[in-house]
Amino acid sequence: MIDSKRFQNDFCAITQFGALENGGVTRLALSKADHEARNYLIKQMQNADLDVHIDPYGNIRGRRAGSDNQLPAVMVGSHLDTVPQGGHYDGIIGVLAALELVRHLNDEQITTQYPIEIINFCCEESSRFGVATLGSKGLTGQLGCAQMRQLRDRDGISFYQALQQSGCSPDAENRSHLSQGEIKAFFELHIEQGPVLEHHQEHLGIVEAIAAPSRFRVTIHGRSDHSGTTPMTMRQDALVAAAQLILGTEQIAQQSSEQSVATIGEIHTQPNVMNVVPGSVSLGVDIRDIDGNRKQRMVAAFQKLVHKVETQSGCRILTEMLCDDVPVQLDETLQQQLIELAQAHQWRYRKMPSGAGHDAMLMARLAPAALIFIPSHDGISHNIAESSSLEDIMRGVTLLSEAVQQSAQG
Amino acid sequence: MIDSKRFQNDFCAITQFGALENGGVTRLALSKADHEARNYLIKQMQNADLDVHIDPYGNIRGRRAGSDNQLPAVMVGSHLDTVPQGGHYDGIIGVLAALELVRHLNDEQITTQYPIEIINFCCEESSRFGVATLGSKGLTGQLGCAQMRQLRDRDGISFYQALQQSGCSPDAENRSHLSQGEIKAFFELHIEQGPVLEHHQEHLGIVEAIAAPSRFRVTIHGRSDHSGTTPMTMRQDALVAAAQLILGTEQIAQQSSEQSVATIGEIHTQPNVMNVVPGSVSLGVDIRDIDGNRKQRMVAAFQKLVHKVETQSGCRILTEMLCDDVPVQLDETLQQQLIELAQAHQWRYRKMPSGAGHDAMLMARLAPAALIFIPSHDGISHNIAESSSLEDIMRGVTLLSEAVQQSAQG
Repeated sequence: MIDSKRFQNDFCAITQFGALENGGVTRLALSKADHEARNYLIKQMQNADLDVHIDPYGNIRGRRAGSDNQLPAVMVGSHLDTVPQGGHYDGIIGVLAALELVRHLNDEQITTQYPIEIINFCCEESSRFGVATLGSKGLTGQLGCAQMRQLRDRDGISFYQALQQSGCSPDAENRSHLSQGEIKAFFELHIEQGPVLEHHQEHLGIVEAIAAPSRFRVTIHGRSDHSGTTPMTMRQDALVAAAQLILGTEQIAQQSSEQSVATIGEIHTQPNVMNVVPGSVSLGVDIRDIDGNRKQRMVAAFQKLVHKVETQSGCRILTEMLCDDVPVQLDETLQQQLIELAQAHQWRYRKMPSGAGHDAMLMARLAPAALIFIPSHDGISHNIAESSSLEDIMRGVTLLSEAVQQSAQG
Repeated sequence: MIDSKRFQNDFCAITQFGALENGGVTRLALSKADHEARNYLIKQMQNADLDVHIDPYGNIRGRRAGSDNQLPAVMVGSHLDTVPQGGHYDGIIGVLAALELVRHLNDEQITTQYPIEIINFCCEESSRFGVATLGSKGLTGQLGCAQMRQLRDRDGISFYQALQQSGCSPDAENRSHLSQGEIKAFFELHIEQGPVLEHHQEHLGIVEAIAAPSRFRVTIHGRSDHSGTTPMTMRQDALVAAAQLILGTEQIAQQSSEQSVATIGEIHTQPNVMNVVPGSVSLGVDIRDIDGNRKQRMVAAFQKLVHKVETQSGCRILTEMLCDDVPVQLDETLQQQLIELAQAHQWRYRKMPSGAGHDAMLMARLAPAALIFIPSHDGISHNIAESSSLEDIMRGVTLLSEAVQQSAQG
């Protein structure tokens, strides 16, 4: 049976690795704290009779044989690494859920037809090397050796070096990634990291698609002037132009769809003193949607807005596109399977988008992929206040376990 | 005669004190560079047969006797100190103009009926001690000994200590300030520090009134959320609320009067990263007018705006008033005198407000005061690019000289 005490024991053990005095955790990928957590996990995976190995990308993988080991495995997992000053629920829940479902199958002495492979993805968070989901990018053939050497942390250590130091073999000749058909299906359980499930008092989110961002760096060049001596009509106030972009960008998302978001989260103003009209402003713009065409329409509307503000304000505005990723649709058959399982328990569920990226986004390139959300208290994540109730977590573990078992049976 | 070569020689000599490699100047009040400039000025004042002394507030004062020395003096001057990385024209022009007009009277062997006193005000810029016009505040009885001890620079040195170290006697018993009637009139020549004269191709500005600021620190408390996972309808985006305040504040000034200005020059956002909805924003707001009632109406409109944005955004908004100064009207008779003198030369002039504060603002409390502006190239000031043409400067020196001479004759 699914054993919440056993789950909680491991959860408590792992939260110690990188724990901060303020109640949060800093467990950067392949750091000392991450290695402590990884070693703990490996031990538990071995105790659960899994065949464990670490792949060239630092992913920890444990295989449970099926009755026909020629068949592709059903893969399930998430990640143990965290952001700095992060919370205890992001990633870890999905890894321990995978471990728990294997233990459950062991307890019940169930042999599935397809093998099951559980995975702790390496370096899901972008906090250390600046790019997210490195382990799943590697596993799905999206990360070359050159890029592994280029991605460096603040101390100049590359992802490649960090893997070598961790005993992995990231060299090109040893690298092996999965191909289409090698995996039957992929499942991930994760906290929502947003407020929607709690707001609607729902137990579970069945993710339909994972949004992708288009990001821009916008630089507004106005003119610094004395705030007392420059008439309003003779100003080129870069902050006023920025304010028009901020409100216009919000409106673009509001008018697009319930599943569209656009955020200006970053602003830098020069010279940024009370008695000088702002001369230049730089903005960080993040536009996301699960529908690629709709996102492109938002991007086009944003560029039109920039042009309009430039014309009206007299400021020069430069935009640099930082990324323009493609949203990922998740497998509809697996969504339907999850819905039926949730309905059988009479759990309240919601089909919903994921605004954040996840390893499932990469795995969906190779196999039918499913992503299950559980509610995040107050929608807070990447924060020491991140939390989910044990009740919600165990519902997620049970749903994941039933879905994986069903998938592995044929 | 007014001698532009002599004027230029002194100008060039003084610009060396605190000169920077980039062409600008840092001559903070009572710094080593300022003392070099002050000593140079004192020597030139002595050479011009002035009776020179330094008052308890660090002001350098030089008196030229009149035919009746019982009569109050006509005072004229400005300041030599600068902001960090400032330009070469702010203040210095007015001090050297006063010196030049005395030399001119000496050359022409003119004795005026009233004495003339030229002054270099100490510490006009707020850059070192955080408060502007300290010398004129002291001279007009607006600066107590306790405040002189409280005002400290970055190294913890108080204005009081800096004065003592400069050989001044700022002690209460020695402090003497001017009273009503001790000065017949005060004149100051200054660069405009704004774009209006150049824009209208005018030679001179006759200042009608000096605007005063009302300043606020506004803190907007929204909620930090994941930019990907938080629907637009569930956000409390502090930067969106800030943008509404920025645009609303601009509109308030635009709708008030041509002589009203309002600026949000300072913005600080938390956590200020691209993938998080801004949780809190702090703004610095500066509202100015030469009409006190009109300024109060702008302040009331701003407070109403804050209330409206707070209600609509769901953010909590706190405002702290940092200052609420009263605009100063300058003497209309002196303005008329300056206009007639300018007309006699067929110089294009403009009656205009001063958006920036000046020592004349304080002197106007004690005596009829006049402030003359000359054009600032591109309106730039407090910047290494600050400049005014020699032609414009000499027109200002001539107008000042004629007005002071006229005033001192009866």
